Amino acid sequence: VRQAFAGGTLIDGTGAAPVPDGALVVEDGRVAWTGRASELPDDVERVDVTGKWVIPGLLDANVHLLLDNEPEVLLRYEPGRYDELILEAAQVTLQAGVTTVFDTWGPLEALRRVRDGIARGELVGSRIYCAGNIIGNGGPWTSDFLGLEQSMSREAQERINPHWEQGVGNELVWMAAEDAQAAVREYIARSEIDFVKYASSSHHELRFLAFSPRAQRAICEEAHAAGLTAQACAMTPETLRAAIEAGVDLLQHGDITGQFPLPDDTFELIVERQLPVAALFMTDRHLEASSDRGLWGRVLQTKDANDRRLIEAGARLLLTTDGGVWSSTSRTHPIYARASTAPDSPVVLGASHVHWLRAAFERGLSPMDALLAATRNVAEAYRVDDVGTLEIGKRADLVVLDADPLAAAEAYGQVALVVQGGEVVDRDRLPERPVLTAA
Amino acid sequence: VRQAFAGGTLIDGTGAAPVPDGALVVEDGRVAWTGRASELPDDVERVDVTGKWVIPGLLDANVHLLLDNEPEVLLRYEPGRYDELILEAAQVTLQAGVTTVFDTWGPLEALRRVRDGIARGELVGSRIYCAGNIIGNGGPWTSDFLGLEQSMSREAQERINPHWEQGVGNELVWMAAEDAQAAVREYIARSEIDFVKYASSSHHELRFLAFSPRAQRAICEEAHAAGLTAQACAMTPETLRAAIEAGVDLLQHGDITGQFPLPDDTFELIVERQLPVAALFMTDRHLEASSDRGLWGRVLQTKDANDRRLIEAGARLLLTTDGGVWSSTSRTHPIYARASTAPDSPVVLGASHVHWLRAAFERGLSPMDALLAATRNVAEAYRVDDVGTLEIGKRADLVVLDADPLAAAEAYGQVALVVQGGEVVDRDRLPERPVLTAA
Amino acid sequence: VRQAFAGGTLIDGTGAAPVPDGALVVEDGRVAWTGRASELPDDVERVDVTGKWVIPGLLDANVHLLLDNEPEVLLRYEPGRYDELILEAAQVTLQAGVTTVFDTWGPLEALRRVRDGIARGELVGSRIYCAGNIIGNGGPWTSDFLGLEQSMSREAQERINPHWEQGVGNELVWMAAEDAQAAVREYIARSEIDFVKYASSSHHELRFLAFSPRAQRAICEEAHAAGLTAQACAMTPETLRAAIEAGVDLLQHGDITGQFPLPDDTFELIVERQLPVAALFMTDRHLEASSDRGLWGRVLQTKDANDRRLIEAGARLLLTTDGGVWSSTSRTHPIYARASTAPDSPVVLGASHVHWLRAAFERGLSPMDALLAATRNVAEAYRVDDVGTLEIGKRADLVVLDADPLAAAEAYGQVALVVQGGEVVDRDRLPERPVLTAA
Amino acid sequence: VRQAFAGGTLIDGTGAAPVPDGALVVEDGRVAWTGRASELPDDVERVDVTGKWVIPGLLDANVHLLLDNEPEVLLRYEPGRYDELILEAAQVTLQAGVTTVFDTWGPLEALRRVRDGIARGELVGSRIYCAGNIIGNGGPWTSDFLGLEQSMSREAQERINPHWEQGVGNELVWMAAEDAQAAVREYIARSEIDFVKYASSSHHELRFLAFSPRAQRAICEEAHAAGLTAQACAMTPETLRAAIEAGVDLLQHGDITGQFPLPDDTFELIVERQLPVAALFMTDRHLEASSDRGLWGRVLQTKDANDRRLIEAGARLLLTTDGGVWSSTSRTHPIYARASTAPDSPVVLGASHVHWLRAAFERGLSPMDALLAATRNVAEAYRVDDVGTLEIGKRADLVVLDADPLAAAEAYGQVALVVQGGEVVDRDRLPERPVLTAA
Repeated sequence: VRQAFAGGTLIDGTGAAPVPDGALVVEDGRVAWTGRASELPDDVERVDVTGKWVIPGLLDANVHLLLDNEPEVLLRYEPGRYDELILEAAQVTLQAGVTTVFDTWGPLEALRRVRDGIARGELVGSRIYCAGNIIGNGGPWTSDFLGLEQSMSREAQERINPHWEQGVGNELVWMAAEDAQAAVREYIARSEIDFVKYASSSHHELRFLAFSPRAQRAICEEAHAAGLTAQACAMTPETLRAAIEAGVDLLQHGDITGQFPLPDDTFELIVERQLPVAALFMTDRHLEASSDRGLWGRVLQTKDANDRRLIEAGARLLLTTDGGVWSSTSRTHPIYARASTAPDSPVVLGASHVHWLRAAFERGLSPMDALLAATRNVAEAYRVDDVGTLEIGKRADLVVLDADPLAAAEAYGQVALVVQGGEVVDRDRLPERPVLTAA
Repeated sequence: VRQAFAGGTLIDGTGAAPVPDGALVVEDGRVAWTGRASELPDDVERVDVTGKWVIPGLLDANVHLLLDNEPEVLLRYEPGRYDELILEAAQVTLQAGVTTVFDTWGPLEALRRVRDGIARGELVGSRIYCAGNIIGNGGPWTSDFLGLEQSMSREAQERINPHWEQGVGNELVWMAAEDAQAAVREYIARSEIDFVKYASSSHHELRFLAFSPRAQRAICEEAHAAGLTAQACAMTPETLRAAIEAGVDLLQHGDITGQFPLPDDTFELIVERQLPVAALFMTDRHLEASSDRGLWGRVLQTKDANDRRLIEAGARLLLTTDGGVWSSTSRTHPIYARASTAPDSPVVLGASHVHWLRAAFERGLSPMDALLAATRNVAEAYRVDDVGTLEIGKRADLVVLDADPLAAAEAYGQVALVVQGGEVVDRDRLPERPVLTAA
Repeated sequence: VRQAFAGGTLIDGTGAAPVPDGALVVEDGRVAWTGRASELPDDVERVDVTGKWVIPGLLDANVHLLLDNEPEVLLRYEPGRYDELILEAAQVTLQAGVTTVFDTWGPLEALRRVRDGIARGELVGSRIYCAGNIIGNGGPWTSDFLGLEQSMSREAQERINPHWEQGVGNELVWMAAEDAQAAVREYIARSEIDFVKYASSSHHELRFLAFSPRAQRAICEEAHAAGLTAQACAMTPETLRAAIEAGVDLLQHGDITGQFPLPDDTFELIVERQLPVAALFMTDRHLEASSDRGLWGRVLQTKDANDRRLIEAGARLLLTTDGGVWSSTSRTHPIYARASTAPDSPVVLGASHVHWLRAAFERGLSPMDALLAATRNVAEAYRVDDVGTLEIGKRADLVVLDADPLAAAEAYGQVALVVQGGEVVDRDRLPERPVLTAA
Repeated sequence: VRQAFAGGTLIDGTGAAPVPDGALVVEDGRVAWTGRASELPDDVERVDVTGKWVIPGLLDANVHLLLDNEPEVLLRYEPGRYDELILEAAQVTLQAGVTTVFDTWGPLEALRRVRDGIARGELVGSRIYCAGNIIGNGGPWTSDFLGLEQSMSREAQERINPHWEQGVGNELVWMAAEDAQAAVREYIARSEIDFVKYASSSHHELRFLAFSPRAQRAICEEAHAAGLTAQACAMTPETLRAAIEAGVDLLQHGDITGQFPLPDDTFELIVERQLPVAALFMTDRHLEASSDRGLWGRVLQTKDANDRRLIEAGARLLLTTDGGVWSSTSRTHPIYARASTAPDSPVVLGASHVHWLRAAFERGLSPMDALLAATRNVAEAYRVDDVGTLEIGKRADLVVLDADPLAAAEAYGQVALVVQGGEVVDRDRLPERPVLTAA
């Protein structure tokens, strides 16, 4: 039986003009037909969405389905239950209309199990593509992140961190490029990852280079030889440039350039080549609340100037939240609380993609370009060819909104229906088994 | 059937001379007869212990069956499994011949369940008497202990600490004495504790008084009104004096007096009244290894001088370890490692009572007095009248040693048999379910 | 030549009604005559203060002329120049109309030198009375205050702290009361202090008792035997009670009672005996800004409730700032900045006494009682009989205000003239040699 | 008048065989003649050094004449007296026979003043060549070193650090290479430095790259364009390689390669090109005492293996101590104490060069090569052509030893005379005005 979502305004994610009184027919989980509702074939079961807007399922170019590394969380759910946390997060995103997510750092085995379970239809959740570790970074309890040397046992650190590190942790940064390359090759071969992410910048003290440019080239070569896209975590002019020259396919938060703005030559390169930039847009409200945070405040101001310039020049932008799901313990933890409790936090799955879109509107990105940044652009950047638009043959991942997403960003938060692979998602029961989101 | 342990040297814990070729008959779990093996009645089943030494089961006047407060331990076994940790500890002590322990600080509900299970014969372990909280101290993750304000969430602190505090935590120290007294009265009424312990000294910064002397008197009154003994944690001359004047029945580590030695008048009071002193003897080896530890090093040197003086004057001394069982994580934790990994650590259940006895020998306590300190004296101090000696009618708790405990302290570690309530303990299977002690 | 301040409204600090068109004649530095301007003798030199208000010079019951213990300050001006800092502070207060201050904790030698220089007329500044150390507390860089164990060398700590400790530091808290008493006796004998202050409460963790009640009695005895008043730093119900029972003459911030309010019986004792209470009134604005500061926020709320109750019951209240002068480094120091940069900070000399008076008005203290709290009450509490009122024979310390202090507290900040010992202070040149207050 | 040092064994620092019964004639501060004592011209004033050994004045390729950044030191001597500390250090080295030192990080203005004063003969001390800042590193109180964010005021940090940073601090690492290059050009133009040093590695977390390779090339270009040698602080395989490829003239502690040994290709490059390596040799005793220091312990073990390999392959090695003079406060400071108080500390001026030479002997460097590493090799590496050997025309900087430096390294500590520019140094009065070295 073929199903049709009919009567709403159809925005197909290709950039084409919205089709009022549009319709879309699903068959075998894919888009089989689109057009005017008045021209719908007869043999379809109609779902009436009159007065609503139909857009492609959203894609988030950067999530961390297990981001809450607060000690209690990682201990309590220690590996056996990381799957549950990841699945919960993938259901939080699906519930909100983000039908596909790209996880760029997390515990690989658990991520893979959930990814594959969803892909096989055994589990409900956003489609997941994952990178495993950020090559060259240590696990969550190392000095690359918050370093708990003084509060957790060495045993715990040595037990927890490897679930993230997977043999390509920060020891690679100490190595000669050739040795690092060999480790990356092995990692790609055995890890079943979907794309490669590596550290161009140091993560905790932002200003340094993690891998040398030649090591970065070697890593990109290995990714490409394996048919994978490569991306870098780069947060300064020189690391960004090194990543571009190394051949990355996507600049993860390429709008962060540290204390100084994106240099002109690199800026032009990005715009001319239309290199996909997963930019961390932040709302005026969030930026204002963060303005007194010393160096980080200055980094964000610089980032915001870069964002406005990228928008104006027509760079290829991708929605990215860098987000996770946060526990009640992290929200009362002296160190971890800040990220998740900030106003308009950019890193809260289920909510922050709407903040991103509002920030995009605030910064002058056209509503249609904002929509493309949240749909087609992400799919293209990751070379995932069956999602991102509602063209015929694509997966029938779509969101029905109660308000016009081209009129106001808040519309993205007014979700009437989420459809994934042609099936209407039972949003009321998501997440199915709340863990971190349990009251 | 009556069982006889016959042929060894019998030391009955009353101070009487050892009986060579002695024998002891057990009936209904109690001592029914003692004498020469050659005069044994006929109708007994003989357990031949020729060439060995028979002594009363040991008593430890101060243990913490759950002492390892390293964050991972308390989270991983969060309340549901604290019983397991406590039972494990009680089996570690039983295995080592300590048939009765007095737990002076721990999570009350779990302690009670294990205590009662052992008392009813449903669980195997040392007999437990417990105090619950040290009245006036906060839980393990407060500033009274190691204060994890910077490394654990507020939620975790507020969830974990009450299991220890039981409504008589450090808020009582902020109160007027009358209000603190009312809280203590309620606590005693509802808590089913076996004895009362309260904070005369501040615990983290040692030098202060926690409760005022009049509050201390009020607490002792409440204990005595309920028929319980009272003891104080006192670590300076003034807190020790306040505790004695308040009417405590036992001085828990009454040998610690901070930077200055026990004043003469207080010293004489202790000796003349024969107030039981649970002294924390430490071996020469341990003291030497601790000598560079700043203030704590000086406190221990002063303590050692007090110990030698108490021994010489014939004070009533009790074996005390203040010990617990330690996890592998606490042994690699930057803060927690020190206690358990020090040479001849005084705080490791199963081992430290032997260190205590060696330290007693080193300091000139006579072998017989050392034995009494580990047996009869503890029972008397706690007014538990059915253990501590091998007199007729007492519980048949005894230890058979391969070497002479009056010759060398190491003999206490050479355990051939442990008998509790007349039953030979199957030591090979203890602890039955290793948790912290698992390899 | 006799000088008359004539034509203003005279408020003499005795509680008597203001005298409009009043006059006051000074002779030999003392008040020689007061009355109506119209009845002034002829042979006086008139200073016309028509349209202004004349009040006694103010007295601050609790200052710390060297309070800024930020590492750089104490090192840079190491002892040789502490005198300069103290003199600067005494000129900041004099400039603001506070003609007499009581320093309750500071480096004794330097305090004495400045005190004596001012008393001899060789230096210009508020009259100083000083206590030296708070007996039982360590110096500024010990755990009684902010403890710089991790950031300053042991050498520096051992060199700086003794200037405050003077042999009666926190080692006394470790002692038996008799030993502490002997140390206090010697201290009083050699120190040339004006009054005695000791620690009833622990200073850093507020809740404990520093000295036992019997030690407190001994300290008060020694003070009284030497003809000195005694006061205690007490911040909980039990420490406050211990201090009162020990016989203190003044309750230094007796309104702070920790987490729980002043108990009724102690409250009544204070009111009935009219025990002087130097209460730390804080403005609504300050309390609001401090409300999120965890435990300290709760302590301040409780304090404020005590304050309102003391005012209503007619307790004998004294103006107290607990204030100091703050350097630019302490104002940008991660730990030290908070005290001095809070809104309406209660601890900034030269400004905070006006905040105190505004807080008094806000809390319903009558304007005349507020004035008495800032003048006569302090003198009486400290038994200094020649200041505090403008009665004949008293020192001619007075302040001429541009606005009516009985109408609004801000009037105390609108100073027209300060007269000390009959001499008009050249306020424009104070402080003479700005150090911490230099731009 | 010409002076001759005659009768000792002359080792001229060229690698030529020692000349027994040798002599050296000084004229106008330079070496005018060398040969057999028996062939000495008649018109010289003889200084008899029979039974002794004459060697060139030593050169230390890496010192920090002001290295003790303990807070009190930098505050107490704040800039006005940094000259004194630097001069004291240069006298400590001269006293020990190190007649020329290369200061590779320090407060530029003070260093220059002392350098120039010594060069003009107005001050007594080792000849100084200096780099000013390590380009790309922040000052002593930034996260590049020990980061005192939590213990010192922001004001102090912002006041002290610029004396080191000189406009080429760690903000350059945040810049695009072109911008960093421009800043370096200006710095070289205005700074009057003698050579350039920059950060190839991050300094605190060792593993990262500070400057990108292209920025490193730009810095070396600027140095060379100005006629200066360039050197890098590089501590991993990739940073070392980047530095070599950038064209550095000297590898400052090029033996440190982090956790992994020097890769073969880089090793061969160093040996073949005879690139000068200022290697941080450490004695067996020091390494043993440092073996438990976690990551740093592993780094040192790896370094030691590199050292042995470099020696065996005949690399061009230079004596380097990285040393300073240490205050009594730093020796009792919880953070700073470690460096200076370790056994055979490699970083104590006046002593550590002898430890270095002993370590060289222990590792199998031939005695003559060790002597060349401490003399000629340093001069050549820095392209300073008038010191380092005792050839005719060179400055008459020499040391007379009581023992044979080719027999045992300890001989370098048995100094009989130090001669600088032909003048015998009055060693007994050095340092002339002890500050940090005062008792």
